[in-house]
Amino acid sequence: MTDPIAIQDTYPEDASHCYGCGRLNADGIQIRTHLDGVNAVTEFDPWPSHTAFEGTVYGGLIASVIDCHSTGAAAIFAMVAAGTEVGSEPSPRFVTAHLEVDFLAPTPLERMRVVGRLVEITQRKVVVESELIVDGTTTATGLAVLVRLRDD
Amino acid sequence: MTDPIAIQDTYPEDASHCYGCGRLNADGIQIRTHLDGVNAVTEFDPWPSHTAFEGTVYGGLIASVIDCHSTGAAAIFAMVAAGTEVGSEPSPRFVTAHLEVDFLAPTPLERMRVVGRLVEITQRKVVVESELIVDGTTTATGLAVLVRLRDD
Repeated sequence: MTDPIAIQDTYPEDASHCYGCGRLNADGIQIRTHLDGVNAVTEFDPWPSHTAFEGTVYGGLIASVIDCHSTGAAAIFAMVAAGTEVGSEPSPRFVTAHLEVDFLAPTPLERMRVVGRLVEITQRKVVVESELIVDGTTTATGLAVLVRLRDD
Repeated sequence: MTDPIAIQDTYPEDASHCYGCGRLNADGIQIRTHLDGVNAVTEFDPWPSHTAFEGTVYGGLIASVIDCHSTGAAAIFAMVAAGTEVGSEPSPRFVTAHLEVDFLAPTPLERMRVVGRLVEITQRKVVVESELIVDGTTTATGLAVLVRLRDD
C-alpha cells in the first residue's frame, strides 16, 4: 500500500510557508493531513520544547495543529465533494474564520493523532470537527469554520 | 513610571516551562501579560518564521498567544478580585478549558497587542474576552474559559 498523499504536499509554493503546515517553512512544525476513509487525519510528534507543565503539551500547539489540520481537512473534503482526488488540479485553499478548542484532559507529550470529520460543506464554507487522540484517549476536541479562498 | 510586573514573571519554576508563556523555555515565545487599567495586556513581536501567507501571521500563533495571554489574564483578574497585587503570594494558576478565536482579517507580521477583558469570575472559573490589535486594527478576537488549579 502506498502512503496517502498529504494535502499540504500539493499546496503551491506561495502557500507553503505557513509555520503550521508549510513544507517550505524550515522552522515550522510542518503538519501533514491525509484522507483516511471518510476522515482527514493528521499525525504529529510534538517537540520536547512544546511543553506546558512537565510531560504535557501546551494548549497553543494543540490549537495550532487543529487549526492547520482543519484547513487541510477542508481542502480534502472539498475535493471529495467535487469528485476529485488529492494531488489533482484545481486544488482549493481554505482559511480559518472561526476556531474552537475544548481541552478535556492534559495531553501527554507523545505522538498525537487528529481525526477530522466533515460537518457541513457549501460552495464557500466547510465546517470540520476534530478529535485529538493520544494513546487511545481523546484529550481535546476542535471545531473549525473554514472559508474558501477564490480559486486563481 | 516603572514597568508593570508581568504575571508570568511571578510563576513558580515548575510552571515556567510552557512554550507559550514560560520564562524558562528558551525555545518558546515567552509572552508576558500585565495589568493595564482594568484590562490585561500582552504585547508580542511575531518571529519572521511565524508566517501564514507572506507578511501575515499564521492562525496557530494567534491562538497560542490568546490562549496563554488568557491564562495569565485570569490569574491577574483573580488577584484583582481578591484585592491582592501581581507579585504577591498566593498567586493563582489557571488552565484553559475552552478557547475560541475569530479571525476577522489577515494579521500583519508586526507587533501585536492583545487586550483582555474580564467577562465573568467565580471561585473556580474565569472568562476572558480578548482583542488582538495590530497597528490600530483588530484582526482577531478571542474568548477563553479558564479553570483555577488547586492552590498548593
